[in-house]
Amino acid sequence: MSIVVVGSVAFDSIETPKGKRDMALGGSANFFSVAASHLSKVQLVAVVGDDFPQNHVDWLQERGIGTEGLTRAEGKTFHWKGLYGDDLNEAQTLATDLNVFADFEPVLPGSYKEASTVFLANIDPDLQRNVLEQVDNPNLVALDTMNFWIEGKLDALKKTLAGVDLLFVNDTEAKMLGAADNVVTAAHNIQEMGPKIVVIKRGEYGAMLFHQNDIAFCPAYPLDEVFDPTGAGDTFAGGFLGWLDKVGDINSQTLREALAVGTVMASFVCEDFSFDKTKQIGLTDLHERVRALQKITAIPENINIL
Amino acid sequence: MSIVVVGSVAFDSIETPKGKRDMALGGSANFFSVAASHLSKVQLVAVVGDDFPQNHVDWLQERGIGTEGLTRAEGKTFHWKGLYGDDLNEAQTLATDLNVFADFEPVLPGSYKEASTVFLANIDPDLQRNVLEQVDNPNLVALDTMNFWIEGKLDALKKTLAGVDLLFVNDTEAKMLGAADNVVTAAHNIQEMGPKIVVIKRGEYGAMLFHQNDIAFCPAYPLDEVFDPTGAGDTFAGGFLGWLDKVGDINSQTLREALAVGTVMASFVCEDFSFDKTKQIGLTDLHERVRALQKITAIPENINIL
Repeated sequence: MSIVVVGSVAFDSIETPKGKRDMALGGSANFFSVAASHLSKVQLVAVVGDDFPQNHVDWLQERGIGTEGLTRAEGKTFHWKGLYGDDLNEAQTLATDLNVFADFEPVLPGSYKEASTVFLANIDPDLQRNVLEQVDNPNLVALDTMNFWIEGKLDALKKTLAGVDLLFVNDTEAKMLGAADNVVTAAHNIQEMGPKIVVIKRGEYGAMLFHQNDIAFCPAYPLDEVFDPTGAGDTFAGGFLGWLDKVGDINSQTLREALAVGTVMASFVCEDFSFDKTKQIGLTDLHERVRALQKITAIPENINIL
Repeated sequence: MSIVVVGSVAFDSIETPKGKRDMALGGSANFFSVAASHLSKVQLVAVVGDDFPQNHVDWLQERGIGTEGLTRAEGKTFHWKGLYGDDLNEAQTLATDLNVFADFEPVLPGSYKEASTVFLANIDPDLQRNVLEQVDNPNLVALDTMNFWIEGKLDALKKTLAGVDLLFVNDTEAKMLGAADNVVTAAHNIQEMGPKIVVIKRGEYGAMLFHQNDIAFCPAYPLDEVFDPTGAGDTFAGGFLGWLDKVGDINSQTLREALAVGTVMASFVCEDFSFDKTKQIGLTDLHERVRALQKITAIPENINIL
């Protein structure tokens, strides 16, 4: 079993109420890969510039992440600059320098084509669809997107969604894409577009999962200090899909497990800048937080109102 | 076992994206009582004007709600007028006519003084403290408050909180009162002020419970149509405290049960205006939604990440 992820590898310059960091390693494919690599084999497809440090590539390889699909182009690596206020649920983008990412055309190495899971991080839906044409017969295709594409390339996005099994999307974007003010209705409307599984990310309020007629919910792991939420969504997706790829079966039970694993994975990335925290954790840390979440969310089985 | 609730009985004129209703029955004590009366004996303390319909008082009595403490004063009943936009989490207040509620001075009938549970709905914290001086020795004193008192009468509120076991408060108010941007830190700061139990209401995102060092979380019951959320907070409190008063014991397990019962009780009130839905439901309806919530929130017990 293995996962192919297509997305960005970037430098992030971030300011939050807790601190400031220039040119930290980030990017959707990077956050996803590091998270998923705790659980399964990951193969990365992204582009970086000639300024990108080789030691980070080495580090990805040491984590078992395949970097054959990480190409170097002439120019600078994608750079994002953002500011978080006291409401850490939303960042204010100060600068988006696409640089070499502007001409990104994902090409999958031959060894990637038999991946069991594909994660299409937030890029142009036409490029996402192009990737799908390059893979053989994955068990699960998951996609992330954002308001930029929902507003600007809705037809292309819908065309891509028709070939996708699972969509990760945030609350506002779900309502926009599903054309409904109610999140349940929005999710059901999105399911009609293709993805039979819709996972709605709600930041500090947790995540909801819709799978056919089944609904599941997991709150965010409660942290008394959120340092920097950058990458939380892709880290969540990495934990979620890493778990599904590891267990190799997709059903009501494994999806609920994936929701919990994604949630706790995301909690770690919020505790420091970049990969400073997630690179330190192991399976025991994930396990402990999942056990804690079970305790937090459990409604006693023997409650009897009648 | 019995519950005393002190708060408002009102007329609400409401517009939501789903419809409009003039002079519907509402008010914190009213919503609380109707909810709690499904589970325990409730005794109401409130004031209405001479315009208040006797048939509603009769109806409360038919539900087993004690109305000896419901006084009639010369003048009009409290009237609130509000508008909800597409974001049903927050109402825009168009008018607040306090009328007879402006001079409300709660006096507990002798038969109320031995109540096992006291709920002080959102009124002036000095009045709330005055009520506490009139009860003998309740098992549990719970209080609701709002930004108006946190901003305007913080010292009085803190004095009252020192004698309270449980605080219901919404997300924004918790952060304001607990002087922290992080909800976990805010809750812990509030626990230092007196209430060993803090319940944070987050509207469509559910509710969090902090009890000593224990944390519990319950999502809102997923509705595909929210008609009118007016009274959801007090209905939640009614289900929560009704359950605790019924089971007569306060511990980690019963508090989790109360969180679920309050959550499903609140889901029903949102499905129609005023009491149009909650007056129709029975224990079977509550039971079924609690069972559904158990399924929605359960993280499989046998998950093993190691």
